Amino acid sequence: MYTNEWKDFNKGKWCKEIDVRDFIQKNYTPYKGDEKFLKEATEKTKKVWNKCESLLKEELKKGVLDIDTKNVSGIDNFKPGYIDKENEVIVGLQTDKPLKRMVNPFGGKRMVKQALDAYGYEMEQEMDKVFDNYRKTHNQGVFDAYPEETRKARTTGLLTGLPDAYGRGRVIGDFRRIALYGIDYLIENKKKDFSKLRGSMNEKLIRLREEVSEQILALENMKNMANSYGVDISKPAKNAKEAVQFVYFGYLAGIKESNGAAMSLGRTNTFIDIYIQRDLKEGIITEENAQELIDQFVIKLRLARHLRTPEYNELFAGDPNWITEVIGGMGVNGETLVTKTSFRFLNTLKNLGAAPEPNITVLWSDKLPKGFKDYCAKISIETDAIQYENDDLMRPIYGDDYGIACCVSAMELGKEMQFFGARCNLAKSLLYTINGGIDEKQGIKVVKGIKKIDDEVLDYKKIKESFFKVLEHIAKLYVDTMNIIHYMHDKYAYEAGLMALHDTFVGRYMAFGVAGLSVVADSLSAIKYAKVKPIREDGITKDFDIKGDFPKYGNDDDRVDDIAVEILEKFIKELKKHETYREAKHTLSVLTITSNVVYGKKTGTTPDGRKEGEPLAPGANPMHGRDESGALASLNSVAKIPYRSICQDGVSNTFSVVPKALGKNELMRITNLVNILDAYFLQGGHHLNVNVLNREILKEAMKSPDKYPNLTVRVSGYAVHFNRLTKEQQLEVISRTFHTTMA
Amino acid sequence: MYTNEWKDFNKGKWCKEIDVRDFIQKNYTPYKGDEKFLKEATEKTKKVWNKCESLLKEELKKGVLDIDTKNVSGIDNFKPGYIDKENEVIVGLQTDKPLKRMVNPFGGKRMVKQALDAYGYEMEQEMDKVFDNYRKTHNQGVFDAYPEETRKARTTGLLTGLPDAYGRGRVIGDFRRIALYGIDYLIENKKKDFSKLRGSMNEKLIRLREEVSEQILALENMKNMANSYGVDISKPAKNAKEAVQFVYFGYLAGIKESNGAAMSLGRTNTFIDIYIQRDLKEGIITEENAQELIDQFVIKLRLARHLRTPEYNELFAGDPNWITEVIGGMGVNGETLVTKTSFRFLNTLKNLGAAPEPNITVLWSDKLPKGFKDYCAKISIETDAIQYENDDLMRPIYGDDYGIACCVSAMELGKEMQFFGARCNLAKSLLYTINGGIDEKQGIKVVKGIKKIDDEVLDYKKIKESFFKVLEHIAKLYVDTMNIIHYMHDKYAYEAGLMALHDTFVGRYMAFGVAGLSVVADSLSAIKYAKVKPIREDGITKDFDIKGDFPKYGNDDDRVDDIAVEILEKFIKELKKHETYREAKHTLSVLTITSNVVYGKKTGTTPDGRKEGEPLAPGANPMHGRDESGALASLNSVAKIPYRSICQDGVSNTFSVVPKALGKNELMRITNLVNILDAYFLQGGHHLNVNVLNREILKEAMKSPDKYPNLTVRVSGYAVHFNRLTKEQQLEVISRTFHTTMA
Repeated sequence: MYTNEWKDFNKGKWCKEIDVRDFIQKNYTPYKGDEKFLKEATEKTKKVWNKCESLLKEELKKGVLDIDTKNVSGIDNFKPGYIDKENEVIVGLQTDKPLKRMVNPFGGKRMVKQALDAYGYEMEQEMDKVFDNYRKTHNQGVFDAYPEETRKARTTGLLTGLPDAYGRGRVIGDFRRIALYGIDYLIENKKKDFSKLRGSMNEKLIRLREEVSEQILALENMKNMANSYGVDISKPAKNAKEAVQFVYFGYLAGIKESNGAAMSLGRTNTFIDIYIQRDLKEGIITEENAQELIDQFVIKLRLARHLRTPEYNELFAGDPNWITEVIGGMGVNGETLVTKTSFRFLNTLKNLGAAPEPNITVLWSDKLPKGFKDYCAKISIETDAIQYENDDLMRPIYGDDYGIACCVSAMELGKEMQFFGARCNLAKSLLYTINGGIDEKQGIKVVKGIKKIDDEVLDYKKIKESFFKVLEHIAKLYVDTMNIIHYMHDKYAYEAGLMALHDTFVGRYMAFGVAGLSVVADSLSAIKYAKVKPIREDGITKDFDIKGDFPKYGNDDDRVDDIAVEILEKFIKELKKHETYREAKHTLSVLTITSNVVYGKKTGTTPDGRKEGEPLAPGANPMHGRDESGALASLNSVAKIPYRSICQDGVSNTFSVVPKALGKNELMRITNLVNILDAYFLQGGHHLNVNVLNREILKEAMKSPDKYPNLTVRVSGYAVHFNRLTKEQQLEVISRTFHTTMA
Repeated sequence: MYTNEWKDFNKGKWCKEIDVRDFIQKNYTPYKGDEKFLKEATEKTKKVWNKCESLLKEELKKGVLDIDTKNVSGIDNFKPGYIDKENEVIVGLQTDKPLKRMVNPFGGKRMVKQALDAYGYEMEQEMDKVFDNYRKTHNQGVFDAYPEETRKARTTGLLTGLPDAYGRGRVIGDFRRIALYGIDYLIENKKKDFSKLRGSMNEKLIRLREEVSEQILALENMKNMANSYGVDISKPAKNAKEAVQFVYFGYLAGIKESNGAAMSLGRTNTFIDIYIQRDLKEGIITEENAQELIDQFVIKLRLARHLRTPEYNELFAGDPNWITEVIGGMGVNGETLVTKTSFRFLNTLKNLGAAPEPNITVLWSDKLPKGFKDYCAKISIETDAIQYENDDLMRPIYGDDYGIACCVSAMELGKEMQFFGARCNLAKSLLYTINGGIDEKQGIKVVKGIKKIDDEVLDYKKIKESFFKVLEHIAKLYVDTMNIIHYMHDKYAYEAGLMALHDTFVGRYMAFGVAGLSVVADSLSAIKYAKVKPIREDGITKDFDIKGDFPKYGNDDDRVDDIAVEILEKFIKELKKHETYREAKHTLSVLTITSNVVYGKKTGTTPDGRKEGEPLAPGANPMHGRDESGALASLNSVAKIPYRSICQDGVSNTFSVVPKALGKNELMRITNLVNILDAYFLQGGHHLNVNVLNREILKEAMKSPDKYPNLTVRVSGYAVHFNRLTKEQQLEVISRTFHTTMA
């Protein structure tokens, strides 16, 4: 069809219908060598990145560099912007200036006003009026429908981080489609789909027809937006530069349109590699040029910004965007999906310095080529900027063309999306069990029908039974809340651009989450194996008297690890009892982002000995300092949580080890880290954030932040520049377990 | 509860929950006397009405008097306006000046622009921008989802008058609730309802919860709007003046919010009468004051306006609003619901002169008091402004507290609403049968899967079979189209104010309609009983050669009348096969408004001898001039169409008789008209527009319109000032049958 653009490509099913995977499988070149071929950043890249670095410094000082208060977010609502026009190989910014943030009132006007206010800006009067008089927002819709119980659960912090005032994110457009097919073909295809959406016009069909119409309009807008940069994306990309540019314009459209917490990229490296290989073969570009394309692409990604409220920043510290790009992994045919461009992506962490974005996620498999495994470990040790996820666990579920939204949420690219649901505080739920559904901090009744426990010493069987009843109540409330949020999101803030880059019939996940797993497991263990006496004030338990020792999660001890699994199993089972909006599949994650600090602040003293206000452990991690049996035992405990059957939205584990514990020299450290990863994932572990560093460096960086401008750490599901964390969060990171021995 | 406001009222169930009917039943005073007690308009009324008359004259000249292009429609979006403040007893205007029209772009921006353009106005740039960038409209939503077939059916005129660019109307708020309970109680009640909307948060429940939240906001807005006139409607009305004022504010909120074709009033007269009786008894007011309240209320109603496009005016000639108020009728207990205020409403036609609005609709029953029957007939003969509907037919279905939306659509007040669906052109459908689904005027294929008829002479059995197949196709398309329209109307133009004056759980009708019934019945009769040869051009039948005579609908001849019934039965049966949005009950009407002219224009020559472009007969009427067997035979034919089982949305019959045919003097005419009405309704006839006039007067009025400023005629389901019709429509009215003999 496109004889010029598709020249030299192996043809196949992908030529007849949209099938990016088929294109990749028929055309990519696996790479099994090492990193020696990689090149440094070009002069152009350095010039552009230098400008960015000084802007970033300025931004760090001011909080935000600038805000466009005249225009609102939208694919085609801003004039073109540049960093350093003559040196930019890949172009396109969210607004007309780098780091200038957009205003997106579609999610909720009050949030925008708070955010503007926090940085000394004001909403334009006209915009204010428009959103008062004409345009209802997602937030208004949600609050018009919320039950009283949801409001209470939000207030107390039982449910936190719900996407009811900003974009839900977790929707990864298949941006590669633009490069492979061009917008015109995508429009034509959507029109064809539309004409086939026949049958009785019931609400579901009507909604889908309207959505497809909006998708077509969004595709047109993408074309206009690209045109404003002098780039025609109506036809397929003709070379590597265009391929990267087109993919980026797709992503850019997504972040111009929507302000989800996680706006992920997908799996572009192996796709792009095909174009680079073709150009290299034809002698059109050199390796330097190839690296330049990836470096400049990554620069652009590092500039993505959204306007957030201070409250939001407290939950999601360090301005993350989860521009997750997965690299590595294996094909279902047993061949690796690693290409030279997988290396080139990792190489940006050297060429441009360590940084949290894009959120590079290595899909680990036992069978990955050694050269790639070693290079990943090497970069991990150097930068602490990489997370690892178990490809052997996910591939059987999602095939070999899936991506990760946010930290750990897998989905088949262009075919699945997720209704994001943040998380529920399990530690608090346990306290509700003891206090008869009354919040231990605010004194309001959040869960009805729960009898207060009056026993002098807590009885395990009784507590567990009542806790499960609390979980049953919360599961219903949680599904109700999510159904409302996503109904209203579709109604008031539908992501037409991102969904235009999906199949018309898309699979949906509804992703629930929990926080405080280790606290609850340890608490129940204490109640079972030690003697726990509640200390009550005015009928509300405020502290516990714990006599005796008990097994603690994180030491490979089934007595408590099984409790953790049992809780999760109960919760997902209960969630699944309630029907979801658009028949989404229920999934569950154990993940906290950095919200473990905020959750902890809002949670009273727990029966495991954790005091009121102290942070929870992040994600599925054992509680700080309690995993005393060495790194491997800690990893073993977490690896016991079943992924597919219970926590299909991910089990996040953040692992910090001091360099010395890994080995005396780089080679040994690399070998050992690779071994750890192999072992963890072979046991069924799902995800691992790897930090190889000494606690002292972090303490030093707290004192002299200027000396460590690029110091990056993996926190929970993402990496962050250490100096962008609040003091409280920094202290929490420092307090985490830094494994000093392996076993 | 409200001891002061409810003083002297008989208490009951209505005191404990919203139940206006119960209040009426326990407190109203039936009136069985004659009209002698009635009073003329007061000086105040005359002064106010004089001002209006000159404004109305000016409006007639200019098309519209003025348009507010700064603000958009909304309950609380306009400053208070007055006609003649010191003489106005009842206050409140849609905008800040009488007859100044609002702009309502929520239905569709393009329509508004066309309308503004037609009258030499322009849309404010800001509003233009807002609706381009931020606020999607009902019209956009509808067109985003319409199937290709609907677009075609609209283009050819198979489906016409669909509410896809303006409000659907046909939603009657129970405005009496404001007077009886006050807004605060209504809000409290809605909040109570909201808290009870529990269970699994599925889409239906979420939508309803959001709607109730919006209803509560709308009630608050009504209070604000009333406050701007210095009237506090938070508590119940304390006297008759407040009762009328509060009811009117409710109606006013409705027409400020929504621009439906039909914005009806309901059944307020007997309710208001209770307050008037109490005040009269207490000596607070005189009969003059009582009449003044009703006169001034009616003045306000006569000023209701919406901004319409020329295309809309062509369909619905004469700027009608269908402010339908039903008077009369019987209670289920056998007592009449006629009160003195029923007379007072009729008396406005004398005090203020004949006029189309409010659309006074007498609910006729065999058992109505003679005094009332006679007075109705007398006013009908004098003004031609009244329509009659069969209370004995409707009461068993809707109880005794129903109203009429638009012309003939019955619904229980505050408990039921209607999804309006305009109508389908049956005459065109028959031509599609002959032409294989191809439109006879535009040549495009509208209905698929229909074989073209190639026969030299049309065969009745074959035609009927194929026609039924066409109806099956159209029924599906029609339901699909309606589902889309009302889904989008709820999404983009929900009438929160009107729905706030309904129960939270409301019954819904989906009202389908047909036009051209007599043409199709006569055509099929011709094919069956005469010899009809199609005359084809390029395969499309353009004319017919009809040999021989055939029975014609309108002459009480079962051979053809049965065909009419059979067609309607088939159509409603087919409609019912398809599920409706929000489980609405399918209903069918035979009604054309004035669109019979436009329909005719768009319809080719039909096998009954009607030529291309000639008007269809209005509503269920026999074709002009074909009902040659006298008035009674004509009425008998129409009365055969079953209401409850087939046409539950109404069977409209417009009946014109020359005064002489009714009798030599007024008394005889009254007696005869009452007899006609009694006979028609006893036979099961559903609706009758009554005109008693000579064709010559209309001809005269065409020549010298200034001499007949108030000349009112009932057209099809509503009355219109004759001089507001287009020349074409005037000619059509003149061409209708004017019965000169009874039998």
